[in-house]
Formats: sequence, C-alpha cells, structure tokens
Amino acid sequence: MNQPTSPMAAPAARVGLHGLLPVIPTPFLAGRADEDSLRRFLDYFLPWLDGYTVLGSTGEAPSLSTAERMRIAEVAMSHTPPGKTVVVGVSHTSVDDSLALARHAQSIGARGVLCAAPYYFITSAPGMLRYLRALDEAIDIELVLYDNPVATGFQLAADTVCEWAALLSNLHTVKLTDHDLAKIDTWHDAGLTVLAGDDPIAFRYLAAGADGAMMIAPSIFPEAFSRLWQLLRAGDVETAYEVFSARVLPLIHVFGIGDEIATSKVVLKDMGLFASAEVLPPLVEASPARSELVRLGYRVAIGKAQAEKSHTAER
Amino acid sequence: MNQPTSPMAAPAARVGLHGLLPVIPTPFLAGRADEDSLRRFLDYFLPWLDGYTVLGSTGEAPSLSTAERMRIAEVAMSHTPPGKTVVVGVSHTSVDDSLALARHAQSIGARGVLCAAPYYFITSAPGMLRYLRALDEAIDIELVLYDNPVATGFQLAADTVCEWAALLSNLHTVKLTDHDLAKIDTWHDAGLTVLAGDDPIAFRYLAAGADGAMMIAPSIFPEAFSRLWQLLRAGDVETAYEVFSARVLPLIHVFGIGDEIATSKVVLKDMGLFASAEVLPPLVEASPARSELVRLGYRVAIGKAQAEKSHTAER
Amino acid sequence: MNQPTSPMAAPAARVGLHGLLPVIPTPFLAGRADEDSLRRFLDYFLPWLDGYTVLGSTGEAPSLSTAERMRIAEVAMSHTPPGKTVVVGVSHTSVDDSLALARHAQSIGARGVLCAAPYYFITSAPGMLRYLRALDEAIDIELVLYDNPVATGFQLAADTVCEWAALLSNLHTVKLTDHDLAKIDTWHDAGLTVLAGDDPIAFRYLAAGADGAMMIAPSIFPEAFSRLWQLLRAGDVETAYEVFSARVLPLIHVFGIGDEIATSKVVLKDMGLFASAEVLPPLVEASPARSELVRLGYRVAIGKAQAEKSHTAER
Amino acid sequence: MNQPTSPMAAPAARVGLHGLLPVIPTPFLAGRADEDSLRRFLDYFLPWLDGYTVLGSTGEAPSLSTAERMRIAEVAMSHTPPGKTVVVGVSHTSVDDSLALARHAQSIGARGVLCAAPYYFITSAPGMLRYLRALDEAIDIELVLYDNPVATGFQLAADTVCEWAALLSNLHTVKLTDHDLAKIDTWHDAGLTVLAGDDPIAFRYLAAGADGAMMIAPSIFPEAFSRLWQLLRAGDVETAYEVFSARVLPLIHVFGIGDEIATSKVVLKDMGLFASAEVLPPLVEASPARSELVRLGYRVAIGKAQAEKSHTAER
Repeated sequence: MNQPTSPMAAPAARVGLHGLLPVIPTPFLAGRADEDSLRRFLDYFLPWLDGYTVLGSTGEAPSLSTAERMRIAEVAMSHTPPGKTVVVGVSHTSVDDSLALARHAQSIGARGVLCAAPYYFITSAPGMLRYLRALDEAIDIELVLYDNPVATGFQLAADTVCEWAALLSNLHTVKLTDHDLAKIDTWHDAGLTVLAGDDPIAFRYLAAGADGAMMIAPSIFPEAFSRLWQLLRAGDVETAYEVFSARVLPLIHVFGIGDEIATSKVVLKDMGLFASAEVLPPLVEASPARSELVRLGYRVAIGKAQAEKSHTAER
Repeated sequence: MNQPTSPMAAPAARVGLHGLLPVIPTPFLAGRADEDSLRRFLDYFLPWLDGYTVLGSTGEAPSLSTAERMRIAEVAMSHTPPGKTVVVGVSHTSVDDSLALARHAQSIGARGVLCAAPYYFITSAPGMLRYLRALDEAIDIELVLYDNPVATGFQLAADTVCEWAALLSNLHTVKLTDHDLAKIDTWHDAGLTVLAGDDPIAFRYLAAGADGAMMIAPSIFPEAFSRLWQLLRAGDVETAYEVFSARVLPLIHVFGIGDEIATSKVVLKDMGLFASAEVLPPLVEASPARSELVRLGYRVAIGKAQAEKSHTAER
Repeated sequence: MNQPTSPMAAPAARVGLHGLLPVIPTPFLAGRADEDSLRRFLDYFLPWLDGYTVLGSTGEAPSLSTAERMRIAEVAMSHTPPGKTVVVGVSHTSVDDSLALARHAQSIGARGVLCAAPYYFITSAPGMLRYLRALDEAIDIELVLYDNPVATGFQLAADTVCEWAALLSNLHTVKLTDHDLAKIDTWHDAGLTVLAGDDPIAFRYLAAGADGAMMIAPSIFPEAFSRLWQLLRAGDVETAYEVFSARVLPLIHVFGIGDEIATSKVVLKDMGLFASAEVLPPLVEASPARSELVRLGYRVAIGKAQAEKSHTAER
Repeated sequence: MNQPTSPMAAPAARVGLHGLLPVIPTPFLAGRADEDSLRRFLDYFLPWLDGYTVLGSTGEAPSLSTAERMRIAEVAMSHTPPGKTVVVGVSHTSVDDSLALARHAQSIGARGVLCAAPYYFITSAPGMLRYLRALDEAIDIELVLYDNPVATGFQLAADTVCEWAALLSNLHTVKLTDHDLAKIDTWHDAGLTVLAGDDPIAFRYLAAGADGAMMIAPSIFPEAFSRLWQLLRAGDVETAYEVFSARVLPLIHVFGIGDEIATSKVVLKDMGLFASAEVLPPLVEASPARSELVRLGYRVAIGKAQAEKSHTAER
C-alpha cells in the first residue's frame, strides 16, 4: 500500500482501506453530469486528502443509469493523481448491474468498491451474503461493505459481518453509518477497518477509533479535516475537537439531517466549484430559505476558522 | 375501453384501469428468465382474468437489469391475446431508466405502466411529483401509481395523490398496498380507480370497493378469483367471501407475510407451470420446511375447492 | 404442573409455559371494565383451553391505570377454576409499576407474568436486562418475555434472549410476535418454550413447532382451536390445517391486521359474551362497514365449521 | 401574560406559549428523585430563561409512576419564582393517568401541560383527538401538543393539528420534534405557536421562526442561549449563530443522537448541579468512554465561550 500523501501510517494488522475518503456529491448541469465541475472539485480537495469515494449515495448513484455511473467514474479516475485511493459505489438492486459496475471500477484502477444491501426488498443475511459473494468473486480489489440501516432497511449485526469477512476474499473494510459505535471494536477485533459514514455524528466515530472517514464534510473542508485527522492520529483528541468544532461543525449542524446532498451543492456552488446546485429527481433542490441558512453555516465555519487560527496561535 | 373477456362493466365515470390484473412472479432458470415457463403461466391464468402486471415487485424487477426487464416484457406481451390488459412495472431509482422502461412498454402495446416512489432516497412529495411528471410526459398510456409505504419508505397522503392526478394526464389508477382503506373512498371521489395490492388483507380491499386487484393470488387461483370477483360485482359479498375463504385463503395465510415471491414459486413449480422455484439475489428460496407448509396450504385450498363445490351445489 | 384439561403432555426438558393461553380482550362498559362480560367470556372458552393471558396488549393494558389493571386481574383470577394457567401482563414503561403489577399477579395466584420491552424509549439490550432483572428478583413465578418488535421498536436477537435466560431464574418462556420463525429452534435448543403471538400468521408458528399460543383466536374459537391443537400434537398437520382453514381463518383474514382488538369485540358482542364493543382511547371502535365485514368473517367461519363437520364425517 | 424576565415581547396574535422552556432531565439518587439536585438545577438556569418543562421525555417521565411524577412536579413548582412559565409533561398511555397528571399540574400552578400521542398502540388521528379532548375538557391551562413521530410512531399531519386546535379550547402551542420544518409556517398561519423540540437540529428550528425552545441545551447553557435568543428576536441571525456555534454546538454534536438524557447528566454532574448521573431503567448510564467525549464537548463549548467573548469584544 502506497499512500505518500497520507498523514498516517497504516495499522500493521489491518489490510482494509483507511484515511479520509469523502463521499462526494456529483455535479449536474441541465440534468447531466458536469465534468468540469467534477474536475474542479477534485483539484480542490485532493491535495489534502487520501482519496475519495465517488458514486455513493451522496453521489446520487441510485438516480443514475449504470452507463452514466461508469462514465462519471471514468472522468473522476482519469483526473486523479496516482497514489490516491478511489472507491467507486456499486450499490444497486440488481446483482448484474452491481457486478458490471464493480468489474468496470476495477478495470479503471479503483482501489475498492462500496456496496450497500440491495435497497428494494428487505434483505436477509443469507440473501445479502449471496449478493456479496457474487461481487467478491468478480473482483480482486477491496469490497467495502456499507452498513446503512436507514437507507436499506436492513439491520446488520456486527458478528454477521465478521462471518462474511471470513468467507470472502476482498472484504476488510466497513463503512459505518449506523449509530451503534460498539461495532467499531467488534470489527477491529476481527481485523477489519471501519470508516466513519454519517456526518451528523462525525466526531463520535472518529473519537471511537474509526480508521478513516467516508463522509461529505472532508471534501468541503479538506485542510481543516486533514489537520484534525493528523491531531487525532497523534492522540490529541482535545485539539482535534477544537478544530472540528470551529471549522467544520457550524456547517454540519445546519446542512442536514437528511438533505445534505442538496445543501452541500449550495455551498459548493457558492465556493465556485460546482456550476450549479442541481440534484436529480427524486431529490429536490434546497429552498431559498434553506440555502440561506446553509450559507450562514459555511460563513460561520470560515469566520471561526480565522478566529480559531489566531486563538490557537496565542496559546 | 374494450375488454371483451372482463366479467364486469366499466364504471361510467372512471377511466382508470380495473379488473383482475395480478402481479406475476417471473420464472427463472439457472439465473435467467425462463420464457417457456412464463408462457405456460400466462396460458394458465389468462383465460379467466382481465390481464396481468408484469415486472412489479413480485416480478423481482428491481433485481433485473433494465435490458432484461425489457426483454421479459416483450416475451410476455407477444404471448398475450388481444383484449387483455397488460401493465408493465417501471419502478426504478433512476428516472432515466424508468423513462426508458415506460417508453418501451408503450411501444410494445402495454395498457399502462406501474410506478412506485423511487426506493433508495426517502422521497418527498415534490420530488415524487417531479419524477412522475417526467414519466407522464413520456407516455400516452395509463400511469398507475403504486402506493407501497413499506417498500419505499414513503407515506403517500390520499389528498396528495388527488392533486397529482389533477396535474398529470395519465394518472387515473392507484395500486393500494397501504392498509389505510379509507383512501379508496377519497380516490373514488376524485375519479380514480383503485386496485387491491396486498394479498394478506386481500378481501378487505375488495369488500371496501376496490376496482380490481394487482395481487398475486388471482394468478394462482384464476378460476376461483374470477368467480368471486363476479359475485362481488353482483353484490353478493357473502358468497364471494365463502369462495375466497374456501379456495384462496388457505394458501394466502401461509405463503407470506413477506416471502410471497419465493413461496409462490414453490407452488407454481409444483403445479407444473414453473420449471424451477429460483429467485434472484437478494431474495432466497423457501427452505424445505417452509415449502412443505406452503404446499399444505395449496392442497387445502384445492381440497376445499372441491368440497366447496359440492357444498354450494347442495344449497 | 397439573393441567387436567390440557390435550398434551409437557415436554420433558422444558419447564416453560405451554398450551393454549389466548390473550384476551378486556370488556368495557361506559369506560369501565365490565366484570360480568369478563366472567361470561371466561366461562365460554375456559372449558376448552389451558388457560389465558389477561392484560396483554390485546387487553388494552397500556390504556389502563395500574390500580385498574390489578382489579381486573383479581376479577379474572377469582373466576378461574383451579388447574388453569393464568398469565398476567405486566408490561409498562415504569419499572416500579411493572414490579407492583408482577408482585400482585403472583399474590393472586397467577402462573406467570408477561413483559415486553418498555415501550417509550427505544430500549437497548443492557437496559432491557436491567428491567427484567428487577422483575425476576421480585417474583417466583414464570417471567414470560414478550418479543414484539413492532409495538416496542426493539429488535430482540435470539441469542440475547438465551443469554438472559441463563442469567435469570424465572425466564423459560417467550411469546413470539416477531415473524422470524427461526427463533423457535434457537430457543428450543436453549430449553425455552415458545408461544405463538401473532394471529395473522398463526398457523405458521404452530407448524414451526411453537409450544402453544398467546393469540386472540383461540378465545373466540376455543373448541376448534382445541381440536386442531390436539391434531398438531398428534402430528397430523394436514387435518389440523383443514380445521384451522375452515373454522378459524375466515375470521382471522378480516379481523386485522392492526385493529384486532376493536374487531374482536364486535364479534364478542354479537356472540352475546360482551355487553359492548367499547375500546379505550387511543383506540377507536370499528366503523359500521368494518364491523359488517368482520361479522361476515365470523359467519363464514361458523358456516364452514358446520360444513367441515359433515365433510370430514363423510370421509 | 406576564413574563418579566423574558427577553422578548409576546406576539400579538398568538396566545400560545413561547420563549425558552427547556425540557429538563430529572436527577436521581439511589433510584429516587433527588430534590436537592433539582432545586440546584432550577437555581442555575432559571435566572436566564422564561421557564421550563418538567417530566417530558427528557425528564424520564415514562419511567416513573404517576404518583412520583406528581411529587416531582410539586418539588419543582414550589421552587420556582413567580412569573416563570412551567409546563408539566402528562404524556401516558392511559388517559386516566394523563387526566390525573393534568389536573394535578393545573392545581399546583403550571401554565401548561405537554402531551404526546399515547405511545404503545400506533395511534390514529381520531383516537388521538379523543384522547386530547378528554384532556382539554379537564383543564383550563395550555395544552401543548407534542409532535414526536420517532418516539410515538405516529405521523401528525400539519393540517390535522390545525383542525384539532379549532375544536379544542386550550390547544395553541405545538412542540415540534419532527424534522418537517414547513409545519412551522402552517401552524403560524393557524395562530399556533411552535416550540423547537430536537437538539440535533436546534438552530434550524430557531432560524425557521420557532417561537421558543423545548430542548435540553438551554438548561445547560442558559446565559448563551438567552443571548442568542435575544439576537434572534432582534433579527441578527448571523451573530446568533456565531454564539450558538461557539458556545452550544460543541456539546450538542457529541451528546446525542439518542442518548442525550444519559450524557446530559454526565455534564450536569460534572458541573456540580446533579449529585449523580443516574438514569432509570430501561435507560443506561453513559459508558466511561462516552462520558469522556461528552466532557470534551462541554470543555470545548466553555473554552470557546471564553474565546468568543474576547473575539466579539474586539470587534
């Protein structure tokens, strides 16, 4: 594993993915993926982070056709410097589509694929294993399991994931969006790495030992997140939380819970990175009043960031 | 509207679809759609019913690729005699895929398409309307709205549907799987037809005035269902329920709740209609013990059917 | 254990409760418990059954004050012949109230108490164990655990219950309302008895090896249920299901799902057992149309019962 | 209406309750309510706030007997200076208990009672109205409706609440814990006041026009909350959010989502206000690791508070 820009050393015993790999919103313009905005966005955050996750839920992958998902993955991948970790979301309700997406991701150089439980039928553990096994046999790159009970209606028991990891060749990483943080220790004991998955309780995952983050916020605040992540890896949780509170939290508190994709795009458009704040149906754009509050959240995060700098410099 | 084989007259004021249009399981063999079984199945039930709904949830449509869905719709359509009503499920999480499926359905002669709320993101009413509007503008056939709160996580208020029906050209029919039966009267007042959608409370919908059925059971018991439907249309609810209780209910009680697709296929295979009881992942086949009980349910329904005949003949 | 009227022998290895112990609706008149109706009801079904469960969910216990619950338990107990098994529901959100109810139940001669997870806060396993431990230490009679995920919002893992049973003195019985029937085998392996808890899939529990029933239906159809239970214990599942289908199912299909308390009371009033079909707020009485359909369900069950008798006699 | 310490003027058209009326945790010691801690807590926050809400969910009311709830309300009330608004939670599953609690609250001088949907049975709108009507007829003080879909399983439509308000004498205030903030405008149009109910999205309610707050945070940070509330009433949303972000948010981000009662008590004990961090079953105390993170959140909030003061003073 070669991650020259990563601030941390890889834990010896765990081969799964780690580091800051934010799930990124997909920019759209007139209903189609906006490649220029996507490249601008990558250029903005990649210098600070370990990589990214494209076409997760946040990327509105379920709203896109399989062909369009492949094309967007290619655009992103071809604009990514070597040494960065790219994970491609391959969640689908059809195992054939998931397999096609996973093979394609591997063919273009992705380090891993991210897969949630199929999200129409309420999935059973045996049915999910059957789905994962097909994926596992089709690829040689990391198969990141996405534990997202709210979106998929499927409660994953921590022990079940350990059993699956023992049966599958490529499953060493879990993205945890569930709020049961005790799963982190269980999965660590089984040699799995765990990536923080839900912005509203972001710091709780990190403080509980998550090996990295697959949330949105690091892509909006890459420098601040990189700094607090280094502080965390160095054991300085207190300063890390001061940085997080001052420079990240003011946006997180108002950009959700639930409509983070639409509100993130408001900020990314204001930042000059996205050409529009469009979302695909069935999502809807943030209302003007909602947008105003999110902008305020961003302003306070930025303003606080400056105050924070002078404050901590004085210490 | 021309439905020569329908046992009932069309209600004057309502232009939506009506009658017995069961949602049918899709037969698979070695992981692929089994065309021969599909044709046998159509031949079995079509003489008794008004038509059918292919590639709904029961048809495992979410587990199939869009191309495969189109192919199966073509196979079914080409084996359907004129005068029968065919509805094709076009639910998807991607509006582009839904649109492609809907245009294709219309091109091959379907009378309508069935669309649920997109099922990954928790949908809002404005987001759902945006999705439906795109579909509505793409087709000239009936747009059947699928009210399925359990599978989609989206609670549709009855009044919201009435508002949508006023805004859209092709929405005159709702498939109701929600258990709030008061919606039937609200939608009737708005000129919509309502199709019963959930087998576990099948007769409650019918007794409450549903204009037809998009459930599984009529496809397994087409003769009995046709008879009880005629009785209901003639106002003889009592005899209709006797027929239903004797000839349909013994299977319905044991073939769900929740795994009706897998258990129906056990019965359809035993009946010689399906070559296998396969389901696609993430579903799993019924266990041997589960299969035994479902077979018992079918045997009792059949045995009862014979007893019922002599019983009612004696009256 | 002395159950002279029970059709079955106690399984050697299991000390938990078993047999037909229906959860019974509580009759009300002008907003107060109707003792005369309660006694008539007990007289109606007790000759056929092993006992009953008073003041469960079906008994509207959560809608009653603790003092009123104690009074009703006393009325029922004092009208129950020796040798019958009485279980008293002690579910509450307050452990002090649960304890008072449990001590009272034991003091008046109940064989067991039935306790669900406290139902306001979403309960954790450690919190539930703390609650159960307090109950367990307060009584010497059976502590029946009520696994009811829908009403309590708490998913009980099968293994967790086995762990609790090993830690507690009085927990040997589980009432299973969850639809995960694989729990039955897990709990049997741990020496626990399992009672069927949900009428809509009643026979599936029984066929899967449940040791008895804590549902409503046996109290309405005690003779039929007693007969089918004997058939089941004798291994004749086929005839048992014929009896169930003919004599019980026509009511079950229409008396739920969800409003079984109100609809059962319509039938019990028509049968001359209850003086009224009143329910306490927040429940509401069945509407006239709803009542008509339930009455039809009962009529068909009764009519079928007679046909069934002549039918099986003829064989 | 006489609220001498309130920072705001009462809106002319709305007679409902408003202002900062935090829901307060109930201190326990050795399993019983700790009156000394309760009085210390009131002394701590009351100088800054309009009043408080005792024995809501946060007060663990469902875990207490009705008699104990009355006693705690009396202790709190007798320690409250005149002019402060006290609301007493009367949510229960039994209408008789709710009525007794409401009459008692009125008798001891409460300004209002807070009532959620009964939380065992899934409530229907007619059933809830029946419950509320009984309460409404029993009291002459404000009946605050608690819209809490997660805890009660009941989705309240905004229009339904307006209909109820028109039918009931004392319902002019809603506590909104639902995340559908569009309800605020609907209820304002109907003349109702709306109180913010959920800490994790606290500022979103306030920015959307909520008339006050029934959350936990104002009781922990009364001075900061009083200041930001004044800023909001004066129209300075920007500075209000700066104050909120610096002095409140660092705790809010880590003290939930879901276990705010246990974690708040950790902080209140550290502050010297509560003698213990005990919770009643089925809740469990925060683990040591969980407690450490919450303490860090509080320290950062306090540290920020000091930095914020010098920062804003410098402007």
